[in-house]
Amino acid sequence: MNFVKMQGTGNDFVVLEDGDNKFLNRESDIAKIICDRHFGIGADGILLIRNSDVADVEMVIINSDGSYAAMCGNGIRCFAKYVYDEGVMKKQKISIKTGDGIKIAEIIDENGKAKGIKINMGSPSFISKDIPANVDKEIINYDVNINNKTYKLNSMLMGVPHTVILGKLNDFDVKEGSFIEKYKELFPEGTNVNFCEVEDRENIKVKTWERGAGATLACGTGCCASAVACNKLGFTDKKVKVSVPGGNLEVEICDEAVYMIGGAEITFRGETDLI
Amino acid sequence: MNFVKMQGTGNDFVVLEDGDNKFLNRESDIAKIICDRHFGIGADGILLIRNSDVADVEMVIINSDGSYAAMCGNGIRCFAKYVYDEGVMKKQKISIKTGDGIKIAEIIDENGKAKGIKINMGSPSFISKDIPANVDKEIINYDVNINNKTYKLNSMLMGVPHTVILGKLNDFDVKEGSFIEKYKELFPEGTNVNFCEVEDRENIKVKTWERGAGATLACGTGCCASAVACNKLGFTDKKVKVSVPGGNLEVEICDEAVYMIGGAEITFRGETDLI
Repeated sequence: MNFVKMQGTGNDFVVLEDGDNKFLNRESDIAKIICDRHFGIGADGILLIRNSDVADVEMVIINSDGSYAAMCGNGIRCFAKYVYDEGVMKKQKISIKTGDGIKIAEIIDENGKAKGIKINMGSPSFISKDIPANVDKEIINYDVNINNKTYKLNSMLMGVPHTVILGKLNDFDVKEGSFIEKYKELFPEGTNVNFCEVEDRENIKVKTWERGAGATLACGTGCCASAVACNKLGFTDKKVKVSVPGGNLEVEICDEAVYMIGGAEITFRGETDLI
Repeated sequence: MNFVKMQGTGNDFVVLEDGDNKFLNRESDIAKIICDRHFGIGADGILLIRNSDVADVEMVIINSDGSYAAMCGNGIRCFAKYVYDEGVMKKQKISIKTGDGIKIAEIIDENGKAKGIKINMGSPSFISKDIPANVDKEIINYDVNINNKTYKLNSMLMGVPHTVILGKLNDFDVKEGSFIEKYKELFPEGTNVNFCEVEDRENIKVKTWERGAGATLACGTGCCASAVACNKLGFTDKKVKVSVPGGNLEVEICDEAVYMIGGAEITFRGETDLI
């Protein structure tokens, strides 16, 4: 079986073409075998490319533990680059069916290859019941004392619950996010936590503690939430570059939605008898 | 660049042919790029195949952090299988130059491929200054109290310092090895720690805490040390199957040396532009 290994800001995937549904009903077992980093190919997840009646193409994401993921910002960039570069669908705007509805991936072309991919990430909500949060007002510059440290929280729903804390990154250990994630008296369903440093009006640095996953190399929705919070507080413009441990992304805040623009890379191509 | 990815009892390597020394003086940087599990191919280390004037072939092992390893029991099985299966050297006994001298890999053939590889792992020493240990007698059934728990230690030099503790594996947490590793009043240079359960005279189960590395899927010298200790204490025969978290190995104790017999697998073949 042939495969392509890709990464987007360090989030890595094995991409498999499944136009004939040969992997149907075996997706979970295949992902566990393929993603094992010692006995398999090694990846955070697999991306299956399938035909769709309602979009140009369907993306199925299965995590390394065999569970399904509805959507993933880093994964969809890898997926869109593969679909474009390999000629599965050579369109500038590719509609992709995901577990979170149909997403449009806009290709930024350079010499016939996708140099960047722009994804509509939806719109943020600061309404506390949407986040959800147990408070009657917006959580903006909201002081809390957690584990003997005072934080100023800025929280929203950006696909998933996100809290942004501004300051110098060196003043935080990203593991502090663990205590904020589990501060259930405010966030009954937990929250992702983004420590964010403003460099200037067009550049921010972000380290994210992902709910249930811990510190990661890059969190797409976390970058969007951070850009939205910084802009709402007046520190940055509507378009910013976001530096994360796994690389760089761009976020653009428009009236209708927040857009994430970033790259993806093929790290290697291979052939295996594992499945 | 083409490569082959292999694993031996879960210890995984990217194998690269370097007969023309094209990677010379770049080995460390190449290993760091290749072994990165998100941005590279992902592996515990790389194995370079080079020509040798003093042996059939030379094996150069570089760990994922860029450091050189003199020798690795799991690595040399992968290396020998590649050399045999791919026809680099189709001999039943292959002499391999390593950082720990010349090793002989004996191929157990099945249909022209290496089904098993037998490696001379040297001989154990129970002399305390060899281990080294701060005690005037052999460490056999040697009671110590470490971190409020009593252990019966059996220690030897088997390539590196090894301590074997017999009992039911369920009665130990392999992390207890950390305290024994660092029990400097007895082991000034530390020790690897093997928790070992005797199933019958021909079968043992082993979990190893490796000095400086923690719990691993399989430690070749640890399997040898465990088989030697069980045999010395009269519980097992000279040839045993050893079950480890990463798979199975066999150990045979002979007068001149201890031999380890195990397999290795190609997990995938690939092509990359990373280097």
